[in-house]
Amino acid sequence: MRIHIQNPPPDDLFVITPRQWADAAARRPDIGLGHDVSYADSDDGFAAGMADAELLIGTPGTLKGRVLAGAAKLKMVFVMAAGMDKLMPFDWLPPGVALLNNRGAHGPKMREFALMALAMLNNRMPAYATQQRREDWTGHFTTILRGKTCTVVGVGDLGGNAGAAARSQGMTTIGVRTTPAPHPEFDRMVAISDIDTVLPESEFLVLACPLLPETRNLMSRARLSKLPKGAKIINVGRGALLDQDALCDLLDSGHLDGAVIDVTTPEPLPKGHRAWTTANLVITPHVSADSPATYNPDSLDILLENLRARRAGTQLPNQVELGRGY
Amino acid sequence: MRIHIQNPPPDDLFVITPRQWADAAARRPDIGLGHDVSYADSDDGFAAGMADAELLIGTPGTLKGRVLAGAAKLKMVFVMAAGMDKLMPFDWLPPGVALLNNRGAHGPKMREFALMALAMLNNRMPAYATQQRREDWTGHFTTILRGKTCTVVGVGDLGGNAGAAARSQGMTTIGVRTTPAPHPEFDRMVAISDIDTVLPESEFLVLACPLLPETRNLMSRARLSKLPKGAKIINVGRGALLDQDALCDLLDSGHLDGAVIDVTTPEPLPKGHRAWTTANLVITPHVSADSPATYNPDSLDILLENLRARRAGTQLPNQVELGRGY
Repeated sequence: MRIHIQNPPPDDLFVITPRQWADAAARRPDIGLGHDVSYADSDDGFAAGMADAELLIGTPGTLKGRVLAGAAKLKMVFVMAAGMDKLMPFDWLPPGVALLNNRGAHGPKMREFALMALAMLNNRMPAYATQQRREDWTGHFTTILRGKTCTVVGVGDLGGNAGAAARSQGMTTIGVRTTPAPHPEFDRMVAISDIDTVLPESEFLVLACPLLPETRNLMSRARLSKLPKGAKIINVGRGALLDQDALCDLLDSGHLDGAVIDVTTPEPLPKGHRAWTTANLVITPHVSADSPATYNPDSLDILLENLRARRAGTQLPNQVELGRGY
Repeated sequence: MRIHIQNPPPDDLFVITPRQWADAAARRPDIGLGHDVSYADSDDGFAAGMADAELLIGTPGTLKGRVLAGAAKLKMVFVMAAGMDKLMPFDWLPPGVALLNNRGAHGPKMREFALMALAMLNNRMPAYATQQRREDWTGHFTTILRGKTCTVVGVGDLGGNAGAAARSQGMTTIGVRTTPAPHPEFDRMVAISDIDTVLPESEFLVLACPLLPETRNLMSRARLSKLPKGAKIINVGRGALLDQDALCDLLDSGHLDGAVIDVTTPEPLPKGHRAWTTANLVITPHVSADSPATYNPDSLDILLENLRARRAGTQLPNQVELGRGY
């Protein structure tokens, strides 16, 4: 297969190297060997590589704004990301070309981050971070996570691992997704249309769903206010899933006890933004789910499994349904 | 048995209530019922209660400086703490009176805190806390904890649970204690006299041992410098186990990547102390191991098990060896 890999700038950890490709191919020789792979990180390289490419691999950043109309042989685009929001709407995608994400590449790292964030919020680390800025030695003794309730919105690779992290500490887990089908990491599942019914019991709320027109501002000011007093929030999905200004207000008022957010609106969060100095709010710069040791290798493994499915004529496990956006 | 409980001031979570005592007695009626218990939080109450007390219960704070010479019937002192450093030397203890600590009451909470601190350091949360103060959105992508090496100094209740936390994330664990006898949570045990041999491979170092004359300044500047570049430190023992000034220097120089310290020198850490503003240093105010839901109940359960051992004429599991200090 003619494969073109459009890489980000050279110093970025998301650059796929010929060595990484060769290693992935060697792990799955029956489907990984014999491909003709080109690499580029420039516009000229993109144009040259796409002349006869059947498969295009890139990150949302390297793919955004690209014109694919002239790529006559293109059959698939593999995006090195779980969320497609930067690439929506999909009008840039020629008809008949399959769009794939790398769902599955974020799991172990997300599980560790979620475990950390749950324990940090439970131990009031956001409050201690705020106190440390004013050199204030005031203790807050807290009980352990066991038996507390954690609601996770979105139960894909990210949310499923967040649920597993909560479970590993003996928490009660509630999952929220489009339809309330059972999920092994959750004690209870509810449909997204019924989310208001579980907010009052959600001591911990994890946002891990895609950003879509119907999930934008999902946690509006009204919904954030329905969380119990002292509730704690983790956002590993996208900043616009919640009303960030309301989040800051509710942390300021004390209704919410703390939050750990790995995603913001906008990104990067600009200097001078109120979120930087909001009490009990811990901010990380969109790093929660990407391990440099495993991100590219796992992504390539996932891609090759999709090529295997394509050869077998079965459904591609990572194909994005364009109508729903994930 | 005549039991006197000397409590801290009323708003403190460490106050033992008659209800907590009654609940503990009901959990172990064969050994818990039939005692004559007095409670006080004043000096007068102490004097009155101690006139005929056979067992004294208190915290290091309520016991420090008390004169017990006149307590003719006193047989045991139960201290609501694991570390006895505040009460050393033991010259205040009448000859023949057994001293007991509450080793075992800190486990589940410590395990959660250690898990949190390991994940925080691995995900560079101390760096993000420092960056947040200057409103700096710079990402650091890190691999997961699995396979990294964690050395724990002191493998009692605290250190054993820290080892279990590290194990739960697939870390390689090294335990350090007086003698290198095997311990179920550690892949390898080394004697404290050989600690220098494991420092160069200790990517994570947890201090969880008692503060004794021989452990004071255990992690001297020279030893801290023997940790590998990028090493991370957790101190849940006592502040004076390490050279705090050297810790700050080595964080400033970048030799150490981060630290989470729950104990400091002195405590409380005074305003203006350099540790408050040292980069990549997270400080919590001595709260890592005490859950308000379980601390007093678990401590009383531990005490009653010791009374059971005393009645049976067997060794008291929580008796402090005065010569070694724990």
